[in-house]
Amino acid sequence: MTGRLIGVGVGPGDPELMTLKAHRLICAAEVVAYPSLAGAQSFARAIAAEAIAADAREIVMDVPMTTAREPAQAAYDAGAAEIATELDAGRDVVCLCEGDPFFYGSFMYLYARLSDCYEVEVVPGVTSITTCAARAGMPLAARNERLTVLPGPLPEDELRARIEGAESVAIMKVGRHLSKIRAVIDALDLTGQAVYVERASLEDEVVCPLADAPIKAPYFSMILLTKGADPWL
Amino acid sequence: MTGRLIGVGVGPGDPELMTLKAHRLICAAEVVAYPSLAGAQSFARAIAAEAIAADAREIVMDVPMTTAREPAQAAYDAGAAEIATELDAGRDVVCLCEGDPFFYGSFMYLYARLSDCYEVEVVPGVTSITTCAARAGMPLAARNERLTVLPGPLPEDELRARIEGAESVAIMKVGRHLSKIRAVIDALDLTGQAVYVERASLEDEVVCPLADAPIKAPYFSMILLTKGADPWL
Repeated sequence: MTGRLIGVGVGPGDPELMTLKAHRLICAAEVVAYPSLAGAQSFARAIAAEAIAADAREIVMDVPMTTAREPAQAAYDAGAAEIATELDAGRDVVCLCEGDPFFYGSFMYLYARLSDCYEVEVVPGVTSITTCAARAGMPLAARNERLTVLPGPLPEDELRARIEGAESVAIMKVGRHLSKIRAVIDALDLTGQAVYVERASLEDEVVCPLADAPIKAPYFSMILLTKGADPWL
Repeated sequence: MTGRLIGVGVGPGDPELMTLKAHRLICAAEVVAYPSLAGAQSFARAIAAEAIAADAREIVMDVPMTTAREPAQAAYDAGAAEIATELDAGRDVVCLCEGDPFFYGSFMYLYARLSDCYEVEVVPGVTSITTCAARAGMPLAARNERLTVLPGPLPEDELRARIEGAESVAIMKVGRHLSKIRAVIDALDLTGQAVYVERASLEDEVVCPLADAPIKAPYFSMILLTKGADPWL
């Protein structure tokens, strides 16, 4: 009998924001797999570290830092092959994913490669967007409000058009796109309604009005924007 | 010293999808508060039931079933007053919220009433959208894709325009709006790319292509729709 592939969301960063189910599955895992970025320590592994058994086998997918698709895809090809070997040997493999596996998560790349041939379970996790909202004290959406999630790398024109047509907006993956995004929000005269959040739920978290955001943003940063006047009373 | 108001997301339904932090806070709570709908059993309380201490004080906000705003707001006014009495007496109050407190969560109504006067902490939870995606095996968004979250009660014209301009779409609160939403998605020729999910992560969960959805949907149902052709390889 082949093993099961289990994609587990480990949440936004604070290990206590893992679900009880994620914690149980990671504690029991004989084999865990996770990505690391350009040889750096894996963020997903760091979140789950306390739960991983000392004798668990660890499969690391080292994803190079580049916007080109092929090198990253080669890393997932190699990782999927290594995971498949474990599954074929009858062992379950628990894949650790920052946040939620199906919300801008790297697990999708493994899912695309392995879900046709193996039994897969996906365990949802707390996403960065609701964590940022919680930390900023800024409700995302209520009643019949719409919420639009936009990746920061989108072109300036498209960002502008999408923000203009939206109600509540969460802009992910801000990083090196911060100055472009700020210019768009400034031009729309919405800076006063926007907050900047960096490394939400971690000890070195930053939460501030967008106007006070630092010049340089890390990859794990986000901008939240709401247009509602009195949405919650 | 006054107590702290703690809004805790208890996740989508499966008690194991509570976070470790939610579980710890609920277990330790002297006072818990939660909404119930028109006298029915509270879903948030049912999710957290195992963790609530036998001698915890419970504040129930009974929200009437109506689309009018005033009766619901009166229930939150009364609940906020009762919670304030506990906070003034120096006791923390843990408010239980289905899913995440700031993502279409009832906690916003308490937050709007109490956050100016009391210390508040918000603990994010797993939302229904990523849970539905996990259960449907349908990644929500990858790379530079946009995600739009739409409430089902929106007018037909607006739903149509928003779905047309979107990439990935999650339609919340389907309930009695199912036939209207199906008609919109059919007219856009997108039914083949849509899935219907009801009571995700619970024992009586339903996951099926939208074309096979039941005639009558409960309030806790959702439609997911992706337009990507080959987004995950």
